[in-house]
Amino acid sequence: MRIIDLIEKKKTGHELSEEEIKFFVEGVTSGAIEDYQTSALLMAIYFRGMTLDETTYLTKYMVQSGEILDLSDISDNVADKHSTGGVGDKITLMFMPIMAAAGVYLAKLSGRGLGHTGGTIDKLESIPGFNTALPIPEFKAQIKKLHTAIAAQTLSLCPADGKLYALRDVTSTVDIIPLIASSVVSKKIASGANHIVLDVKCGKGAFIKTPEDAEKLSNIMVEVGKRLNRNISAVISSMDEPLGHAVGNAVEVQEVIEFLKGNMCEDLKEITFTLAEKILKYTHNFSSQEECRKYLEDLVMSGRALEKFREIIKAQGGDDSVIDDYLKLGSAKYKYEVKSHTTGYIKSIDALKIAKACKLLGAGRDKKSDDIDHSAGIYLNKKSTDFVNKEEVIATILTNKENVIEEAKAIVSEAFQFDAKPVEKKTLIYKIIN
Amino acid sequence: MRIIDLIEKKKTGHELSEEEIKFFVEGVTSGAIEDYQTSALLMAIYFRGMTLDETTYLTKYMVQSGEILDLSDISDNVADKHSTGGVGDKITLMFMPIMAAAGVYLAKLSGRGLGHTGGTIDKLESIPGFNTALPIPEFKAQIKKLHTAIAAQTLSLCPADGKLYALRDVTSTVDIIPLIASSVVSKKIASGANHIVLDVKCGKGAFIKTPEDAEKLSNIMVEVGKRLNRNISAVISSMDEPLGHAVGNAVEVQEVIEFLKGNMCEDLKEITFTLAEKILKYTHNFSSQEECRKYLEDLVMSGRALEKFREIIKAQGGDDSVIDDYLKLGSAKYKYEVKSHTTGYIKSIDALKIAKACKLLGAGRDKKSDDIDHSAGIYLNKKSTDFVNKEEVIATILTNKENVIEEAKAIVSEAFQFDAKPVEKKTLIYKIIN
Repeated sequence: MRIIDLIEKKKTGHELSEEEIKFFVEGVTSGAIEDYQTSALLMAIYFRGMTLDETTYLTKYMVQSGEILDLSDISDNVADKHSTGGVGDKITLMFMPIMAAAGVYLAKLSGRGLGHTGGTIDKLESIPGFNTALPIPEFKAQIKKLHTAIAAQTLSLCPADGKLYALRDVTSTVDIIPLIASSVVSKKIASGANHIVLDVKCGKGAFIKTPEDAEKLSNIMVEVGKRLNRNISAVISSMDEPLGHAVGNAVEVQEVIEFLKGNMCEDLKEITFTLAEKILKYTHNFSSQEECRKYLEDLVMSGRALEKFREIIKAQGGDDSVIDDYLKLGSAKYKYEVKSHTTGYIKSIDALKIAKACKLLGAGRDKKSDDIDHSAGIYLNKKSTDFVNKEEVIATILTNKENVIEEAKAIVSEAFQFDAKPVEKKTLIYKIIN
Repeated sequence: MRIIDLIEKKKTGHELSEEEIKFFVEGVTSGAIEDYQTSALLMAIYFRGMTLDETTYLTKYMVQSGEILDLSDISDNVADKHSTGGVGDKITLMFMPIMAAAGVYLAKLSGRGLGHTGGTIDKLESIPGFNTALPIPEFKAQIKKLHTAIAAQTLSLCPADGKLYALRDVTSTVDIIPLIASSVVSKKIASGANHIVLDVKCGKGAFIKTPEDAEKLSNIMVEVGKRLNRNISAVISSMDEPLGHAVGNAVEVQEVIEFLKGNMCEDLKEITFTLAEKILKYTHNFSSQEECRKYLEDLVMSGRALEKFREIIKAQGGDDSVIDDYLKLGSAKYKYEVKSHTTGYIKSIDALKIAKACKLLGAGRDKKSDDIDHSAGIYLNKKSTDFVNKEEVIATILTNKENVIEEAKAIVSEAFQFDAKPVEKKTLIYKIIN
């Protein structure tokens, strides 16, 4: 088999066979296929697409290209959730203790975030002492004991995907839906999950801009997951506005703790519970959605989910007193209020602008080696549909960088759009794909 | 400027600017642009094409990427011809002495052929002593004296094109018409030609299969050449059947000498004279095409073209006694006749099959370092429309490899198609683009 024949085949619109995709993935992994040939094939895939069969084979062999986390000695009910990424997305931090409190096993391997704010691992590291560098045996031991653990990814999961992504990133071939699908699903499978729920976001603050593209991607991911014998669903939601009130790292952890204390911000609750329901469908027997929702409400309102969060923090070496004293999460040197320049109803808050302002304040990173300022971020005092008076505080800026405050305030201010008349609530969840 | 932005621009169907194409060509030449980015852009160009403006800029900066042969101190009437390649294509060997005998300057820099038979340089090297390794000063001195010289390319002409071609060859991006056009025209311009004629072949034995594609390519090449201030035309002809009777190296040189002695095979004459007319249009003042054609006939029939060929051979160290004694061109150890298995009219002779048989016999090479057997080849005793009796000799196989004879005979035999009724002559020249 020769890679050039595979390129020609795809270029001229033909379907690659399982054997050919296996050859490709193995060649990428071993380095036997040259990068310039891989990138030519990737660009041909951009134009020609991939069938579901091709995408399934690609996913299957990406899983096989590296290590696989085997959790079968713990349970057959291992869940995982993946978010395609959004602004203020702290869902994992609520989802994890809720799932564990419900008796579902959740093994969370997470990467550090590159972007406007940190990733889940970075957010957790706002908690003093919290250790995410768990070796696999300890990680598994904690899951057995607490039903859940979270660790920075150290296993070599799907190295073929890693190599392909690095190449896609520099050859303008990131935006290829079957490749995105394959990348997401392969990592969830290699992480040992039996039940998978995908949190697919679209809109201004997501890399997928339209519900149509999100649906295309979701359909492929769910179908590929099923073909590879996983329980899998996708929840498509809007990412035009930040999720919740907090965007950053420590400030998001604080919002998570408030949530687990029962102060559930509406959009966070809707997304978290919907995702949780998808998993509980596979693991529990509720007679109705209402019953399931009530069960989840109760897990939070009874304090059981918060208790689980405390156990996780303690087990992973963190200082659980942060739960009662938010100052222990650290605080930014500068705290500036952004005030409304008008009286009216908030029509929208541009997620991308808020994200860019956060980045400017120091909450994110460009390279893996960059430091993150855990205390930097933005708190949205007001959300869409809220009525505000002129000069009322709509957002609070948190940073240690004095020289960026004015610019950040201007961006945040621009992010808010107003209307004189009351504004209707926008759709949060577009569609669920099972 | 970043190459990834250029890839994205082309991928999404936008036109690259002159500055962007300059950046690309310079980056390819210097190595600043990674091969995997170049190949992604090439594949995007396969799907999106290039405008005439883009193709012109690409050609212009490929010329500027390397050395340029400056012949302006010799004449402003320097001609060159380029063939897109065919089976039995020995046209340059007749065209060169005819042009020089007509007083036109022709500076021929030629590569060694990769393919079923050797290239023009290889064919000439069938002549004992013929030296094609002329340093540029000697090459130019000979042109001044004899109006023509031929040398294996040693200048670094269009290195960007060389690098792009090497990459296209391994990434399935050879068949991109604007890139082919740009590659051909840039090399002709860098070789110092003012008047260019392109011999564009299409059919079974050519890499372009249809007259439509040949016309597309020709239109682009002619337009780009004109925009870069060259006189340029293209002659589109059929390459379904081999040109002339001889296919190989020494055997082709022998056919050339016969031609120059006045035994002009019809198809060779038609192509050679048509190409010559295109150049003479720029350099001479004939009142009609008939007058020009008569002039060319006379150059051959008077022996002046043959005399020029002899001068070239002698000037470049070759043994000109080959002209009178073909045995001096060397002869193959084995000589086998292929006989007709039927009585009838020859309907077609598949050029590709004849070429493949030649390769098998030893007449070609796969890698630059491979040796060529100059004496190997095939002589077609009969051509299309000829009537033959069963068991009459239709072709002669020449080789030094005994073990391939049977296979070669079978392929040659298969190449011939017969009809019981007389066969009409097929169109040789499809179109001329000025």
